[in-house]
Amino acid sequence: MQTADRGLSFGDGVFRTLAVRAGRVLNWQWHYRRLLADCELLGLQPPAAALLLQEIAQVAPADAVAKVIVTRGPGAPGYAIDREAPPTRIVAAFQAPVHDPAFARDGVRVRRCALVLGEQPRLAGAKTLNRLENVLARSEWEDPAIAEGLLADASGRVIEGTRSNLFVVTRGVLATPDLARCGVVGAQRERARELLQEAGIECRVRDLEWRDVESADEIFLTNSLIGAWPVARLDGRRWTPGPVVRRLQALIGESDARP
Amino acid sequence: MQTADRGLSFGDGVFRTLAVRAGRVLNWQWHYRRLLADCELLGLQPPAAALLLQEIAQVAPADAVAKVIVTRGPGAPGYAIDREAPPTRIVAAFQAPVHDPAFARDGVRVRRCALVLGEQPRLAGAKTLNRLENVLARSEWEDPAIAEGLLADASGRVIEGTRSNLFVVTRGVLATPDLARCGVVGAQRERARELLQEAGIECRVRDLEWRDVESADEIFLTNSLIGAWPVARLDGRRWTPGPVVRRLQALIGESDARP
Repeated sequence: MQTADRGLSFGDGVFRTLAVRAGRVLNWQWHYRRLLADCELLGLQPPAAALLLQEIAQVAPADAVAKVIVTRGPGAPGYAIDREAPPTRIVAAFQAPVHDPAFARDGVRVRRCALVLGEQPRLAGAKTLNRLENVLARSEWEDPAIAEGLLADASGRVIEGTRSNLFVVTRGVLATPDLARCGVVGAQRERARELLQEAGIECRVRDLEWRDVESADEIFLTNSLIGAWPVARLDGRRWTPGPVVRRLQALIGESDARP
Repeated sequence: MQTADRGLSFGDGVFRTLAVRAGRVLNWQWHYRRLLADCELLGLQPPAAALLLQEIAQVAPADAVAKVIVTRGPGAPGYAIDREAPPTRIVAAFQAPVHDPAFARDGVRVRRCALVLGEQPRLAGAKTLNRLENVLARSEWEDPAIAEGLLADASGRVIEGTRSNLFVVTRGVLATPDLARCGVVGAQRERARELLQEAGIECRVRDLEWRDVESADEIFLTNSLIGAWPVARLDGRRWTPGPVVRRLQALIGESDARP
């Protein structure tokens, strides 16, 4: 990659972090749909699905984390876009992280982050390369017993985890935060909503406040590398894993096993 | 640079864009002060001034634009920071842009951008690699007769141009927007305030609304590559260059000529 690439200069691009198991990309359909949506938002030409899958297979032949980055390509120092310039495509692989099996089984401990997410409806939902808020939020704790931090916006709406999406179940009703003002629409969030809906469990998208989260009967987190983790503890509040996250874990497992 | 560099993955870094004339970096002191402040904000080890000046001299021996990027360096896919990892330092040079001399002499035409800046006090003022808002704002117009777009935040405060800082003079009082919630504190903004203060012209830092800008007697823009440009036109409103920008242009010229 050139050092003058706009992906580096301005974070002018998007990315996906994908779980590869035995050479197969999990949840590829939602990942590619989200990549298309995010590329469209920034006006980037998206790479073809077949090309990406071929390149991921080359770098991640077995179990791995694959990262796909699409940037606006090289550019002069200014912000103006050269609409003819070809995008840069980067496909890299990392070692798959090993998570404590207790996280999925018994649930994880999470904290509230002090960082308040800025609201930018023009970029909300997209997984862009502008991720300094996530970096700052994740730097708030070092205790390895804390698996995730939850973030709210300036209006007090709880939005997401630093690297995961949030779901709450209250009196049998499942909901996930509206991400129209900030936050990232994860591929696993979208798959979770789809799988649960097919199983007859509707998920509402709405604004949630801290008291909605604290008073929920069940909370869980999703992302492509963790699947779905129940939340067992948030500050003083404790939960045991509930039926919706157990159902979702089973559905994700079945979906991942399908060829 | 490694493709796994956090500067690319997350925009986890800061930069400076410097004017080099006959091998000399203009306004180096303020650039380096701002680089130190921005590195401290993100917890990055800043490069030594002597090292940077030596590397800039290597890539930009005559007239050029130099770009200095400092990132948090290579990293695993996650947001967590490895505090032992050494930062990445990139020093590159570009051809100096040629601006129409009429811009500095007669003033420029500017527009209001539709994009509304998000508020993030934790990052406000810093020249980080998260610049997608600037990219989107700059993509709003293609007319080369428009030299800059002005941006406001969600509360209606006018903050800056896409690549410049804003100053207004109203009934003899100079002011520039408060950048505590969003915006970039430019090295040229800081030098302009200092030079004008030394010349007996105080600059207030305060919130400005569109009506304050429209009703001003004089408006001008600063950045390291343009120096100071009077604004001659914003939508229907027109101005002729005023005494404060003329004074500032002279002061910048003298300061740049000093060895």
